[in-house]
Amino acid sequence: MEDSSKRIIGLVLRVLALGATLTAAIVMGTSKERANLYALSFEANYSDTPAFKYFVIVNAVVSVYSLIALFVPSESSLWRLVAALDLLVTLMLTSCISAALAIAQVGKNGNSMSGWLPVCNQVPDYCDHVTMALAAGFAAAILYLMALTASAHAALDEDDCC
Amino acid sequence: MEDSSKRIIGLVLRVLALGATLTAAIVMGTSKERANLYALSFEANYSDTPAFKYFVIVNAVVSVYSLIALFVPSESSLWRLVAALDLLVTLMLTSCISAALAIAQVGKNGNSMSGWLPVCNQVPDYCDHVTMALAAGFAAAILYLMALTASAHAALDEDDCC
Repeated sequence: MEDSSKRIIGLVLRVLALGATLTAAIVMGTSKERANLYALSFEANYSDTPAFKYFVIVNAVVSVYSLIALFVPSESSLWRLVAALDLLVTLMLTSCISAALAIAQVGKNGNSMSGWLPVCNQVPDYCDHVTMALAAGFAAAILYLMALTASAHAALDEDDCC
Repeated sequence: MEDSSKRIIGLVLRVLALGATLTAAIVMGTSKERANLYALSFEANYSDTPAFKYFVIVNAVVSVYSLIALFVPSESSLWRLVAALDLLVTLMLTSCISAALAIAQVGKNGNSMSGWLPVCNQVPDYCDHVTMALAAGFAAAILYLMALTASAHAALDEDDCC
C-alpha cells in the first residue's frame, strides 16, 4: 500500500477513535436518572460507581491523547513513542470497558449469591445511557487496536529505512 | 544484548507468566465458602459470578497458550504470529482482571446507590482467595506485557535480517 494511503487510513482511524472516546465519555458522564420506589426517591448517577468514573476518566484522557496524536507528522521519529502509547491506550480502554461491563451486567441481571438485585427496571434510561456509552467505548477500543497496528507498521518502516 | 540472553529472558518471562496464570486460575477456581447469616446458610462460589468465571476461563486458556509458546524455536518464522497472540493474550488478561476487580470492589465496599451490600464481612476467606487470584492475574498481565515487547523485538529482528 502507498505511504499516502497508509497516512490517510491512520488519520481516519484516529479521528473516528477520537469521536468514539469523546462520545463514550460524554454519554457515560451524563448518565443519571431519578427514580421513585414506594416512598423512597433515589438518583442513579454514574459518579456513584467507581468503575463508571474510571470509564469516563480513561475515555476523556484518551480523547486528549487522540487529538494530540493527530498532529504527529508522518515522517516524525516519534512513531515508536506513538506505537507504545497506542498500546497503553488500547490496554486502558480494554480495562475500563471490561470493568464497566462487569458492573452493568450486575445492574441488569443482579447477583443472587451476593443478594445484589438488578436495578435496570427502576432506572431504564440510566441503563440505556450506560449501554450506549459501553458500545461507543467498545468501538473506540477496536479502532485503537487498528491504529496500533498502523503505528507499529510506521515504527517498523522507520527501522527499515534508517 | 546477545541473542542467547534475549532468548533466556524471553523464556524465563513465559515460564513465570505460565506459573502466574495457572495460579490465578486455580486460586480463583477453588474460591468458595459457606456462611451462615441468622437462620440463612449460603455458599459463596466463584461460578455464581460471570466476571469470576470469565477470569478463570481466560487464565486457563492463556496457561495452555503459554505452554505451547514455550516450544516455538527462537529462529522460527512464527514470531510474528506469537507477537500478535501475545498482544491478544495481554488484552484478554487486562480485560478479565478489570472485570473481576470491579466486582471484587463491590464485594468489599458495596454500592449504596444500587443497594448492593458488601459481602466480604460474611465470607472473608472467599474474598481473600479472590484477592490472591487477582494479584496473580495482575502479575501475569505485567509479565505478558514484557513478553510481548520481547516477541515484538524478535519479529522486528526477523524483518531486519531477511
